[in-house]
Amino acid sequence: RIKASGLKLRFCTNETQATREKFVKKLQGLGFDISVAEVTAPAPAACRLLKERGLRPHLLVHDDLVPEFAEIDKTNPNCVVIGDAAENFSYANLNEAFRVLIGLEKPVLISLGRGRYYKETDGLKLDVGAYMKALEYACDVQAEVVGKPAKTFFESALAEMGVPPQQAIMIGDDIVNDVGGAQQCGMRAVQVRTGKYRPCDENHPQVKPDAYVNNLAEAVDIILNQL
Amino acid sequence: RIKASGLKLRFCTNETQATREKFVKKLQGLGFDISVAEVTAPAPAACRLLKERGLRPHLLVHDDLVPEFAEIDKTNPNCVVIGDAAENFSYANLNEAFRVLIGLEKPVLISLGRGRYYKETDGLKLDVGAYMKALEYACDVQAEVVGKPAKTFFESALAEMGVPPQQAIMIGDDIVNDVGGAQQCGMRAVQVRTGKYRPCDENHPQVKPDAYVNNLAEAVDIILNQL
Repeated sequence: RIKASGLKLRFCTNETQATREKFVKKLQGLGFDISVAEVTAPAPAACRLLKERGLRPHLLVHDDLVPEFAEIDKTNPNCVVIGDAAENFSYANLNEAFRVLIGLEKPVLISLGRGRYYKETDGLKLDVGAYMKALEYACDVQAEVVGKPAKTFFESALAEMGVPPQQAIMIGDDIVNDVGGAQQCGMRAVQVRTGKYRPCDENHPQVKPDAYVNNLAEAVDIILNQL
Repeated sequence: RIKASGLKLRFCTNETQATREKFVKKLQGLGFDISVAEVTAPAPAACRLLKERGLRPHLLVHDDLVPEFAEIDKTNPNCVVIGDAAENFSYANLNEAFRVLIGLEKPVLISLGRGRYYKETDGLKLDVGAYMKALEYACDVQAEVVGKPAKTFFESALAEMGVPPQQAIMIGDDIVNDVGGAQQCGMRAVQVRTGKYRPCDENHPQVKPDAYVNNLAEAVDIILNQL
């Protein structure tokens, strides 16, 4: 309905355990009209940054994400890219990434997100942010975070659509990463009361959404009604 | 010679990959007159703290350190103790420690040191401080660090000898953990130009030793000469 109305649309995800292809297939299975070209995700954002700055990454990421870096030169690395590597967060792999980083004259650490933890069916798991902090501390560097809520991430999505922030609306369930990040970038943002939304989000000390909706369909209704 | 002179003596170590027994055997093998009762180390310091506050730890430590916690109740944990766990820093073990911590009403994290990294024959390794930072970030807590350079650690050693800080001298090779820590505690501190000493330590922006010596024997000479 958004697309049919003529409005431009991007899907912004922090997914870093799978390629955009896999992510898109999942959403297509749920009935979404979505293609890979419409997805803004941390891995391609990192690839853009790597190319712009001539960086060759040592990757500490999930196996399923590696194909996103297929076209990137990874020989003789001069930076480290860390994502939610899950089982790949082994003692050996962390030491290896650390050695690459500490061995650089000017250590560059790029992190595909700054999440603290998330829940899976078998329990809570440490997210990439925790391991990012470990490497930051060990090497006395500050990671460059791509992905929500980074301003550059939202700016990429806007640039890809050719839309200024004042003319864009972000819809998301995450009060900090979706709503706060988009607002920092000059966009308006609507929080949807599904997914990871919690009632206590409505008393968040820093972030106040421009509106709430009960589900995505309601967000679409309201947006189309105001055209 | 120090002992024979009548001066009191303690050995302060941040060793957390082995029990004091093992540490003492190593030094005895090198010719030191040393017993377990003369060693101040992070694990027994942590045990004292656990007992004082009725804390039951979940341990994320090196296998060889576990015997130091033999007398501590570890059922139904209400805190996490992290040491340099080396190979035990697996993805599964870190998630487990994290789950214990985040599940506590008031998360308590006790860290046996705050080192960033160290060198072994097969290369650099991340030290406990890096993993401490990961858990701190994930759970939004601040770890309580036992071991050098914590003030309480030096205070324990002084209390065990019954000596006020102004009458004690610390001799060590680590500019921050040995020299800086002891000085913070009101002691004088001598840096020995062996071990992890580096010439650039002499230009350290924060810490200035009260004196330098070329080796431990020289430190003993100078101290005994001033009696």
